[in-house]
Order: sequence, then structure tokens, then C-alpha cells
Amino acid sequence: MRHEQLSELGQQLRVDSVRSSAAAGSGHPTSSMSAADLMAVLMGNHLRYDFEKPEHPGNDHLIFSKGHASPLLYSLYKAAGALKDEELLTFRKLGSRLEGHPTPELPWVDVATGSLGQGLPYGVGMALAGKRLDHVSSRVWVLCGDSEMAEGSMWEAFEHAGYERLDNLTAIIDVNRLGQRGPTRHQWDLDAYARRIRAFDWHTIEVDGHDIAAIDRAYGEATSTVGRPTAIIARTQKGRGVASVENHEGMHGKPLKDPEEAIAELGGVRNMAVPVLGPPAEQPTRPTSEGPLSLPRFNTGDTVPTRDAFGEALAAVGTARGDVVALDGEVGDSTRLEYFHKEHPERYFEFYIAEQQMVAAAVGMQTRGWTPYACTFSAFLTRAYDFVRMASVSRANLNLIGSHAGVAIGQDGPSQMGLEDLAAMRAVHGSTVLYPCDANQSAQLTATMAELSGIRYLRTSRGGTPVIYPSSERFPIGGSKILRATESDRVTLVAAGVTVHEAIAAADRLAQDGISARVIDLYSLKPVDVEALRTAAEVTGRLITVEDHHPEGGVGDAVQGAFADGHPAPRVVRLAVRTMPVSGTPAEQLNQAGIDAEAITAAARELVGA
Amino acid sequence: MRHEQLSELGQQLRVDSVRSSAAAGSGHPTSSMSAADLMAVLMGNHLRYDFEKPEHPGNDHLIFSKGHASPLLYSLYKAAGALKDEELLTFRKLGSRLEGHPTPELPWVDVATGSLGQGLPYGVGMALAGKRLDHVSSRVWVLCGDSEMAEGSMWEAFEHAGYERLDNLTAIIDVNRLGQRGPTRHQWDLDAYARRIRAFDWHTIEVDGHDIAAIDRAYGEATSTVGRPTAIIARTQKGRGVASVENHEGMHGKPLKDPEEAIAELGGVRNMAVPVLGPPAEQPTRPTSEGPLSLPRFNTGDTVPTRDAFGEALAAVGTARGDVVALDGEVGDSTRLEYFHKEHPERYFEFYIAEQQMVAAAVGMQTRGWTPYACTFSAFLTRAYDFVRMASVSRANLNLIGSHAGVAIGQDGPSQMGLEDLAAMRAVHGSTVLYPCDANQSAQLTATMAELSGIRYLRTSRGGTPVIYPSSERFPIGGSKILRATESDRVTLVAAGVTVHEAIAAADRLAQDGISARVIDLYSLKPVDVEALRTAAEVTGRLITVEDHHPEGGVGDAVQGAFADGHPAPRVVRLAVRTMPVSGTPAEQLNQAGIDAEAITAAARELVGA
Repeated sequence: MRHEQLSELGQQLRVDSVRSSAAAGSGHPTSSMSAADLMAVLMGNHLRYDFEKPEHPGNDHLIFSKGHASPLLYSLYKAAGALKDEELLTFRKLGSRLEGHPTPELPWVDVATGSLGQGLPYGVGMALAGKRLDHVSSRVWVLCGDSEMAEGSMWEAFEHAGYERLDNLTAIIDVNRLGQRGPTRHQWDLDAYARRIRAFDWHTIEVDGHDIAAIDRAYGEATSTVGRPTAIIARTQKGRGVASVENHEGMHGKPLKDPEEAIAELGGVRNMAVPVLGPPAEQPTRPTSEGPLSLPRFNTGDTVPTRDAFGEALAAVGTARGDVVALDGEVGDSTRLEYFHKEHPERYFEFYIAEQQMVAAAVGMQTRGWTPYACTFSAFLTRAYDFVRMASVSRANLNLIGSHAGVAIGQDGPSQMGLEDLAAMRAVHGSTVLYPCDANQSAQLTATMAELSGIRYLRTSRGGTPVIYPSSERFPIGGSKILRATESDRVTLVAAGVTVHEAIAAADRLAQDGISARVIDLYSLKPVDVEALRTAAEVTGRLITVEDHHPEGGVGDAVQGAFADGHPAPRVVRLAVRTMPVSGTPAEQLNQAGIDAEAITAAARELVGA
Repeated sequence: MRHEQLSELGQQLRVDSVRSSAAAGSGHPTSSMSAADLMAVLMGNHLRYDFEKPEHPGNDHLIFSKGHASPLLYSLYKAAGALKDEELLTFRKLGSRLEGHPTPELPWVDVATGSLGQGLPYGVGMALAGKRLDHVSSRVWVLCGDSEMAEGSMWEAFEHAGYERLDNLTAIIDVNRLGQRGPTRHQWDLDAYARRIRAFDWHTIEVDGHDIAAIDRAYGEATSTVGRPTAIIARTQKGRGVASVENHEGMHGKPLKDPEEAIAELGGVRNMAVPVLGPPAEQPTRPTSEGPLSLPRFNTGDTVPTRDAFGEALAAVGTARGDVVALDGEVGDSTRLEYFHKEHPERYFEFYIAEQQMVAAAVGMQTRGWTPYACTFSAFLTRAYDFVRMASVSRANLNLIGSHAGVAIGQDGPSQMGLEDLAAMRAVHGSTVLYPCDANQSAQLTATMAELSGIRYLRTSRGGTPVIYPSSERFPIGGSKILRATESDRVTLVAAGVTVHEAIAAADRLAQDGISARVIDLYSLKPVDVEALRTAAEVTGRLITVEDHHPEGGVGDAVQGAFADGHPAPRVVRLAVRTMPVSGTPAEQLNQAGIDAEAITAAARELVGA
């Protein structure tokens, strides 16, 4: 498009941002107005996208890392002919697809944004997938705010993209100088941003973000830059084009007071249609299955860590499914992701110790149809919790593996122990939370989780545990396994992971006292096996839950939650990690925490009144 | 100390690291050996510290951000005469203070480390406190690993320290080239680190980390550099001094195979005592109370957001208590921290949108006796969850405030809604979790939380809620308020925050149907008022919990958890946010989520069987 047209388009985007925010009575028009020219030029002359085929593998990706500029994004969609004006004016209303911050409820939105500092890391994942997995020429464009440059996750992204030489990625930084509560740290010091980003091996271009010709040249330079990603650092004015708000503090996140006057000042309503460039016809290379699924089989009675079984199983899943990719936080030797690396190096991604970027890349990759497994210690997945939360808003399909769960890791101490991970992962909307106790179960669940939708979490253990299930055993999601049961059971021991073996040992001890105890392996914590728990409650009347996790949000809460729709509830005693652990052997740790066979036996005796 | 002595001291530290790890049968000797010379020179000639008075306000701070190098840290303590050799050899054993990763169980450890990328952000908090609050000349030294340079939190710290010109802060980066599973991203490219750090306005010095004289000069240069922090980027060899492990892959986190031979190769056991420089005698300026506590008072019947009451109350607490400091994630206008800013600008710290650095700085400041309140949206505190988890390991006393809780925020949509925060915060060891429903309660709890120990979380709401308590009302931690009660109650409605008002409205509707309902305001979610809940269960037999949070880990779990020690449990029905919210008005949101008065009324009717 010609520059005069693009300038007009920029004004149209501003007008539509003002209109939609006015209709909503809330929203972020001024944050949209600063970036309107940047986006007008991008959509008019550089973005390659078929709005009728959002699934087209050759489409570029456009991510609003500054998700609050959603009025601008929706105005772009209208200009592209994808949205009608009537729908634009449903912004932020109940039932509208045009939410306050973008979500994939709209087919052209790949990832939900709104928590700042996330869009660029997602873009890194998409650019990696485009370059190293799909081998397509599509580009990833990320509109970033200047305020979000303070987020460490942005620098994880700059570092990783520079290192991976992602020249299909362009960051557009809308330096409008004003954050939510006042001026940003660097205000209009474009060079402060540029020299930081250059230090991370990016190409940088500083530009006046309202100079159409300069913006157009910058995009051209970005697309022709080979071997490194490009950041376009644009000096802009928040509220550009309306004198009463332009570059004024205190105007963040508010609709304009007099929208009619503002629209007049911006030259009135326009209805330009943008002829967006189409994607190239090329097809992505998509690896296919290299063979049938051949999971590892472990012999009952052997002692095998569930993390080992996970690693071996994932390598096998990777053979059977060409869409599976593995993401490591530089602990693949510990999580056993290294087994996948050996078999499928081309689908293995090392993110070094940057858990936020690792999870974000997984979210980005699944938007292109890949099935990611992102792995680190369960303790360190907490580092990426905001990304996991947002992944659920993105409707992402994602496998997360947290190893080294609980006090059972032993000597390394509490910094390395996942003791909050079950609470965190259970609270994520639509999540599945799995916690195997033996190697065959771990292998089966590793394969099964790939078939689910939403966020799926597998918790694995560092130390060896006895293999108690034959390799032919199956473990449906939402199920459980009854390991001991008679009609005369007087108490049920509900355990998961390492504590299953403690519960079995406790049941044996109790049997010697003449107390018959039922034992349930609750490997599926969410969804939980309500039926089995209720049956156990009816038969035995008493439940003891035992978990290698803090008392809140884990096994105990999951079990009591099975009696939360007005159903009669049994008497419950909960054993969990209630003290701050220190160093010690795994056995000492279970003992100190009061979650070993001895503690379970004592609790059961007391509860039964024996 | 003379350089030959320091060289010997470096060898002693290596030997002691090998010995302690050998005695433990685990640990990270090779990661200790790379930094031994760096730490020998620091302790011998630059660190100012009175090991007999760890509370001395003039003491420097030494933080091992690479916490796995704990053998080196403990060897330093031994060299300083603070630890006896016998205790050194208790490393990683149950009952020892010498845990796998350092914790403040040792009086010379300010903060627990072991989750990488955290030590430097803590150091920023301590350096800020030293410079801007205490006005002392003490320095903060942080030993960083090269692997952890991938963590975004490190770059939040570099950015903030450079911006604040913290010339009392020195980062010592032990570039030993090898991470856990293989080479680091930048291996021995010292300049890759230096140019990134310089871009963030630090002074940088590249040095051979085994050249005693060069190290000594570098520390001298760091202490004499004014107006910017210094990073010493040291090329080192992992496992330095023992040929069988030196610069070898696969040697991370493992004791040496033949410790006796290694000790001989290192020149044998030494017992040098280091005459550590003492701290300067100066006293810190500590602000005192500016007046009595005069909390805001709100009139019953008025409609006031709990976030507003928090903001006004914190400003008042800041007047009464000179030790209170406020930390903002660039949303102080929304959280209402701006009220504190207006009254006490010298104790207000803006971290821009860097939640990890904000929480880390709060942890750092409390090590120097300050009482921090760190505030952002409840949704965005999840960004710092690993820091909150580690703060509990640090035995930190910390106030966290999460505003804009739940779907009740309305149009902004799920990215801005805290719906997992209660689960996350309850699962933190020793935490206190508070959720006020009215302005007087919010103000009281804001003041009360400062008196507690551990991690305290206050959840506030965006929209106005009716003031239902007189300003004279008191709200003990672990208590609750019974808002409706008769002896003929047939059901109890347990609510917190915004849902309290929905529960009251529901009780009114139920009363019209002839169903008498008890209403409990469960403002203290942890600890929870077990007694009130049990009494209500005994009287009414049926409980309905209602919460503006996902179903896992919040109010419902807290309530059922009150019946988890074998006590008979009532029938419970739980109302919570079970769908992915979209945009809508606050009232629409509560309705869509099924947590409004209408939903409560319907659930109560069904449960009672009316």
C-alpha cells in the first residue's frame, strides 16, 4: 500500500480503537493509538496471512505481547475484513469474542496475552518451530510494550532468539514512554533498549514510530536481515493523534472522555479494506511416525525411578509420534529427557536454565501442531507458573513434567523439593495432574498424557521405587488402583507416588495387628476417581491420605474434594509434609515428615481406635 | 593477606569442599573448586564481616547465588573460624545445619539459595536497603554461576541495580563453562557476558579466576567504582586442581571418586585461619515511628473497594512504623500502593513490571530488619511463585498483597484475574492467607499482618463492596465472623471476600423461603477457624462454600481441611469458578461462574432438600 494510504489506515485503527473502547466503557485506547502506525504498515505491506485460513502453515504469526492493546488488534482484524464493524463494537461485552485481552477464542489469535512479558517468549517458540521443525518461511511478528521490557522473561527470549539466530522473528517495541502509573524506566531513551538488545546478538533498528516511510523501511530491513532476529525500537506517543490524551500521564487503560470529538480530531470514521498479502504456498515438512509405540517394560519387583521410566517412555513415544517435541531446562540428565535427546536430537530443544522461556516455547510450538513435553524439576516449574496459568487461557495442549518431587529426593534440601507443585498445577483450569508410583505406570501415563487436551502435569520421583504393576496394566485418566481390598477393611490408605509403597508396607503391618486396610493408588489427582473413593468410604468409613507434598492443594484436598457435592463424607486423617525439611536420606526425610509406613500405621491404629 | 597465602587458602577451600562432599556421599565439589580462588581472595582481603556478630548492621553480605556450591561456602566459614572441622564433615546429614543448599539455619546465611537466578535479585534488595534505607557503607557480594545467567530474573536484577546505581553491589560470575548436563550457552566467552551486563549500565571486569593478583585487583576496582555496580566475570575451571575432574563434563553434582588422591593432589589438608576484616563501627539510620497507628475508618453501608482500604491503611501503618517499606510492580495506582508513596516516598520502591525482582528485593530488605509490603495484581504474583516458595525456605517475614482477585474484576478477562493465587499461597510452608470482604476488615488485616512471621498474603478486590463491619471490629488471625446465626440454621454458607456479600443476599432470600442459613465470613483462610466451622457443621449439618477462585486449593479446600483429623464431616457443596471466564461486567462474571446469590440460593435449596 502507498504511504498516504497507510497513514490513513493508521488513523482508521485509532478511530476504531477509540470507538470500541467507548462502546465498552473500558479498555486501552491510548496504548493502541501509539502503535497504530506500526501496525498499519505491517498489515498493509509486510504481514503474510490468509484470514480465511488461519490454520494455513505458511501464515505469519502476529502476537500482541502488549495484550492490552486489544482494541488495535481487533481494529486490524476489521481492516483486514475478518471482523465486521458491528462485532468490533461488542468489545468487552459478555458473549463477545473480543475480550479485554486477546484469547484464541478468535481464530487469528495463537496465544492469549495480557500478562506482560509473555508474547515475545511465545514468539520464540513459534519461530523455532517454523525454522527447525516445519521448515517454512513464515515470519513471527511480536508487538511489545516498553513497560514489559522490565520482565526477565523478555530477556530470556532475547537471549534464546539471538542464540538460535531466529531471523524469522521480529520484535516491534512500542516505546510510548508511559507505563500504567507513570513514565517507564527508560522513557524515550531508545538507545537504552537498543544497546541491551544488541548485546544479546539481535539486529536493532531505531525508528520514529509515526513515520510511515521509516517504519516501512525498517520492516524491509528486518525481513532481509539474515542470521539474527531484528528488534524495531519505535519512538511513539501514547494517545497519538488526540491532543487531550497524547503523551499525557494518567490516561492508561481508560476510554477517551469525549470519543466523538476525538474521532473528529482523527479525521472521522473510515472503512478502508486492507489487501493483506497471502502466505506462500509451501507445505511444512512434518515428520511422521518412525514405528509403532513400543513402551519400555519393567519387571515387577525391580527397583526403578519413575523419572527413568518417563525418559525411556518419552523416547518411545517420540518414535511412534513424529509430532512430539521435548524441551529441556538444562537438567535433562536429571529428568531423563536425555533419553529422548539421544533418539530424536532434531526434536529436542535445550533452553538452558530459563524455565519461563521453556514453557513459553512449548506453548508457541503447540500452536503449530506440535506436541511438546517441557521438563524440569517439579520445584522449578513454579518459576514458570504465570506461563502455565496463561497457557490455560491460551487453550494450549501441553505436557509438563516435574521431576524430583517431594522430600523423597533426600540430601539436596528444600530448595530442590517440589512441595507446592500439586497445589499449583491442580488449580490451573482444565488441567490433568498425574503422579505415578512405579515405572510401568510412569511409562503408560507418559504416553497417555499426549492424547489429552489442556495442561497435563506428570510428577516424577528421583529415587527408585519397586515395580508393582505388570507392563500390561492400563491406567485410565481419572482412575485409581486398589492394591489391597477386602469386604472387612476398616480403613483406607490413599496414597500416590512414593507414599504408595509406604502405604502398602503400612497395610502389611496393620494386617499383623488384625486391622484390614484398603490401599488406593491415586495416580490421577485431577480428575480424581470419585467413585473408588466413595466406595472405599462406604466400606471402610475412614480414610487416611498420605502425600509427599505440603498439606494444602495436594492429595488430601483432592480426596476430600471427592465428597463435595453433598455426598456423605468419611472420617479423614491427612498425613503430609508439615515442617520445613532439611537435608537427610530419603528414608529419613519420609520419617521426619511423618509420611512413612510407621507414621501411616500409627495414624491408622489411632483412627480405627485399635 | 599475601597472595601466596591466598593461593594456599584457595587450595584449602578446595580440599575442604572435597572432604565434606566425600563425607556426605553427595554434593557439588567441582562447582565449589572453580570459585575457590575467587572466594579466598574475597574473604582474605575484601569482605568485612564479624562472624561473632552476624546481626552487625555494618557487616557486608555474601550471597551464594549458585547455592549448590555450598561446600565452598561452608569451607569459607571454617576458614573464618566460624565452623569447626567436625561440623564441616556433618554436611548434608540429618540434623546438620550444613544443608545441601544454604539456608538461614546458619546465622551467616541471609537467604536460602539453590533455585538458580535468585541470589543476585536478593542482593539487589540488600544493596538498596543498605544505600537508601540504612545509609551504611556495607557491601553486597554475590557469587553467581554462569548457568544461571540464562534466568530472566538475573536480568531483572542487572537492570534494576544498574538503574539504581548500586555501587555497593558486586556480582562475581564464576564462568566455569560447564553446566549440569553439558557446556553452557556461552562457555568461556567472557565478553558475551560482559557486553550484556555493560549494556545494563554496570561496570565489568574480565579476569582469570585463578589468578590471585588479578582477582585482588578486580575487587579493589569494584570497591572503588562509584555510581554503578560492578560485575567481575571470571574465567575458571570446574573441578580446578584435580586433573581427573578439572574441566571434565559429567562431573556436576557428584563427590570425587577418589577423595584421598584428590586431596593429595591439592596439597593435603590445611587449617589456615583467615583474619577477616571487621565491619565499620557506623550505625544505620533507622527511621522511627512518626506517630500512633491511626487506621482509616469506613462507615458501614458505604461501598469501598478493599484495595482502597488496604492502600489507606498501609499509609497509616507506615506512619506508625518506621520499619515498613513498600514495593511496587508498576501498578501502584491499581493496588493503591500509591497512597503509601504519597506519604512515605523515601520508603517506597518502584520495581517496574518485574515481579520476581520485586519479591526478591522484599526478601533482601527483610534480612536487614525492614518490614516489606510487596504489591501487584494477584494474578501476577504467580510470576514470582518460585521466589515466594524460596522465601519460606529463607524463613523470610514478608507481606504480599495481590489485588484484582477473581472474576469480579469484570471486563479485563482471565489474564488479569487471580484465580490460582489462594492455592499457590496456601501451599507455601508457614504462610498466612487473608481475604477481606470489607474496607474496615481490609484495613485491620493490613495492620495485623505486619506482626506475623513467615509469608503473609492479603488478597484484595478491585470493585467496591459494602462496609459491613464497624471500624471498631477486630479480626484475629485464624478467626472468622459469623454474620447470620440461629439455633435453627439448616445450612451454613461459608464465603470470603466478594462472595460474603453474595452469601448474605442468599441468606436473605432463603429466609423468605423459611430456610434459616448461617453465614460465615472466612477472612482467614490459613490458618482457618476450625472451631467455628465445626460448630456450624454440628448445628447445621450442611456447608456450602463459595469462592471467587478455581475449585482447587482455595476456600473449599480450606473448609474441608478443617475436618481432616478424623473429625466427623458435614455434607459440603462447593461453588467456585469452574469455567474459563471471558469478559463481562462484575455481576455477569459472578453469575456466569455460579458464585452469586442466585447460585448460592439454588445450591442451598437443593442441599437442604427444600
